[in-house]
Amino acid sequence: MRNILIIGAGKSASYLIKYFLDKAKAEDLHITIGDINIKNARKLIGNHDHANVIPLDVFDKESRSNAIKVADIVVSMLPARLHIEVAKDCVTHSTHMVTASYVSPEMQALDSSAKNKNLVFMNEIGVDPGIDHMSAMQVIDDIRDKGGEIILFESFTGGLVAPESDNNLWNYKFTWNPRNVVVAGQGGAAKFLQEGTYKYIPYHRLFRRTEFLDVEGYGRFEAYANRDSLKYQSAYGLNSAKTLYRGTMRRVGFSRAWQMFVLLGMTDDSYTIDDSENMSYRDFINAFLPYSPTDSVELKFRHQLKIDQDDIVWDKLEELDVFNPKKMVGLVKATPAEILQKILMDSWTLDENDKDMIVMYHKFGYALNGEKRQIDSTMVAIGEDQTYTAMSKTVGLPVAIATLAILNGKIKTPGVQIPIAKEVYEPILKELKEFGIEFQEKEVPYLGYNPLNV
Amino acid sequence: MRNILIIGAGKSASYLIKYFLDKAKAEDLHITIGDINIKNARKLIGNHDHANVIPLDVFDKESRSNAIKVADIVVSMLPARLHIEVAKDCVTHSTHMVTASYVSPEMQALDSSAKNKNLVFMNEIGVDPGIDHMSAMQVIDDIRDKGGEIILFESFTGGLVAPESDNNLWNYKFTWNPRNVVVAGQGGAAKFLQEGTYKYIPYHRLFRRTEFLDVEGYGRFEAYANRDSLKYQSAYGLNSAKTLYRGTMRRVGFSRAWQMFVLLGMTDDSYTIDDSENMSYRDFINAFLPYSPTDSVELKFRHQLKIDQDDIVWDKLEELDVFNPKKMVGLVKATPAEILQKILMDSWTLDENDKDMIVMYHKFGYALNGEKRQIDSTMVAIGEDQTYTAMSKTVGLPVAIATLAILNGKIKTPGVQIPIAKEVYEPILKELKEFGIEFQEKEVPYLGYNPLNV
Repeated sequence: MRNILIIGAGKSASYLIKYFLDKAKAEDLHITIGDINIKNARKLIGNHDHANVIPLDVFDKESRSNAIKVADIVVSMLPARLHIEVAKDCVTHSTHMVTASYVSPEMQALDSSAKNKNLVFMNEIGVDPGIDHMSAMQVIDDIRDKGGEIILFESFTGGLVAPESDNNLWNYKFTWNPRNVVVAGQGGAAKFLQEGTYKYIPYHRLFRRTEFLDVEGYGRFEAYANRDSLKYQSAYGLNSAKTLYRGTMRRVGFSRAWQMFVLLGMTDDSYTIDDSENMSYRDFINAFLPYSPTDSVELKFRHQLKIDQDDIVWDKLEELDVFNPKKMVGLVKATPAEILQKILMDSWTLDENDKDMIVMYHKFGYALNGEKRQIDSTMVAIGEDQTYTAMSKTVGLPVAIATLAILNGKIKTPGVQIPIAKEVYEPILKELKEFGIEFQEKEVPYLGYNPLNV
Repeated sequence: MRNILIIGAGKSASYLIKYFLDKAKAEDLHITIGDINIKNARKLIGNHDHANVIPLDVFDKESRSNAIKVADIVVSMLPARLHIEVAKDCVTHSTHMVTASYVSPEMQALDSSAKNKNLVFMNEIGVDPGIDHMSAMQVIDDIRDKGGEIILFESFTGGLVAPESDNNLWNYKFTWNPRNVVVAGQGGAAKFLQEGTYKYIPYHRLFRRTEFLDVEGYGRFEAYANRDSLKYQSAYGLNSAKTLYRGTMRRVGFSRAWQMFVLLGMTDDSYTIDDSENMSYRDFINAFLPYSPTDSVELKFRHQLKIDQDDIVWDKLEELDVFNPKKMVGLVKATPAEILQKILMDSWTLDENDKDMIVMYHKFGYALNGEKRQIDSTMVAIGEDQTYTAMSKTVGLPVAIATLAILNGKIKTPGVQIPIAKEVYEPILKELKEFGIEFQEKEVPYLGYNPLNV
């Protein structure tokens, strides 16, 4: 029997574990789930006889090392910063490793050790990063094989609420870590490449420089730029591309409304507010507006941001109940971002029966035989319920498929890597289709940003 | 003879040195000026027989220590980060010290050593910080002596171009370190207190939340908030004040125009632009605007910031020649802030005959005998020429006067300090009047921000 050790059985582990359990008999697998809190893991394995749960504190070197020693492959679903100690143990005990997280410099530093021991350390194999890499590289390689040259690559992903559960004015609910949503885009200007020119957008303009994307059957979305659109330029082999843009998708109108919070400074996570515990929601909003003994918080807000009487953003604000003087923040010495997160969680938390949605959109502009062409590729995944979410499906399944492929020697190139090689993405994308994760590709007229070549 | 060592003879040393030279005979002083570049110092002392210039590299421990050893008091006019090594030598050799810079934590840590050796380490005794401390504390102490209680304190300073040299649309020229002007306000939200409520302004709103100030004889100014208006709350003894606000003064309209650069991200100093060397001014502006093969940079700029055809801010932009495709940036791997600074220096550098101006405005609201009152206090200093500037006068004179007062035992309380004690500010403010640096005080109706007590 082959031993798979999964460390961390959080939100995104449901499909991952189910995949292994379903194949356990046929593939002769034993699955061990190690977590500091074993409750969720127990629920997920039920009484399956090829699986067990062990309490595992990843900071306890000895029990961590003992668990890894007996595994043939380790899947770390821990928060990204905690992978590295696991990875070092995997080198020590000659164990393959899979994560859905970005490759950290520390992880990258293990590359030669992994290669020396013929170990596969596969990373960034969730949804974004993960499915985006694989689906993009498949089209890019295909275009190249035909002799084409990529001149434009744009890639967008959104974690959203499914249309059937989309019942608020923001067309948004938290389907993943709310904190990441509140501070999204912070930390420096967004940089991208448009028709050979570098472009920069400061954080406080990011949500006003969106573009629209239409997904057949799902209507219109908008996207704002990610921090670094050039991150995978050389990994994807796109050094001669004239346009590179990566972004995050929301429903149309979200960004213009979100900009209110950005402009007033409510997403700032760099300082704490002394008396936050005893503030009402209304007090919090008022802290970002000029003092007045008589003017209402509402009118000051409208005036500062020049919001017309009939502007829909106002209804979005009111829906969040931000002007309520009775709802208390109740957080001690919280940052504005933490307080805003709390306010939003009142309204944007998924209900028991709500479903989530992952949507992805790639644009590939290319030149072939002197002609400019474009392929647009889209994928939509809808969750089943609050356990089997689209997020957990699109993160967990590629991790699981890759893990089994490594165990079975189908993915064998050793080293610290991301899934951009044909050997990796081809079998995984093929199997994902069986689970309904499939891209719709279509040839569209090449537009780029300079269609007339002016 | 008493030996005064001045380390650093930069822009603000002219009045400082002149003061000592004028008093050298009567006060039995010998002035030694140490600088890495002795040219400016030589020019400033001429052939005065109570002064000499020595080449001094402050990083050379031995020559620094030797120079300090023979001094009775040391005036450090170095950049703020360089004071600390001088200060440590002053402790070692039992020498008093004076600087115009903010007290750093390292400087504060020398407090008990200085006290043990009965040494005065006077800091923040330039203009801002310096004259602002002294002039504010004189009024605050006076109000307290009468039994009044301070309920509002606002304080504003501006380094500007004198009215007679004010000949551009921005009503602004660089009279001090241009870099500080370009990055002013960055690094976190501005925090202040209004009628008992903490208020926060993020950087990208700072220049849209100004207030007006009228100075008799000089017209109207505007002011934007400093980062931390609460910095001196306890030092000034203002813990029960309901309003605390400190700001920077500009001529009216500067901030609204400056906001264009802030909004587009041109004041960002946190990343470099790869190809900045070969960019034109126009390319630089275009890097912050969406790509278009046909639309002009001008129209994209107007559209992004919604600038009407007849808005004066547009003339201000054009005056800076920012759309010129022939003027080259020429700076290698520069930050947006560095490039903007270069563009501004083309237009905002003082001409040979230009004069600068320092303007200061304090508001003191107080309660006395159940009545609310207010004193407004203003000061304007105009420079004589490019050597004897208002900046060098208002920085150098209080430093010089304090230095002599310490030498003469008139200021004697030891330790690391700022000039907020009556023993210190009273004689200095009195002597400053002889040099025309004088505050105009007037009783005005108390307005505060809640005059009707609603």
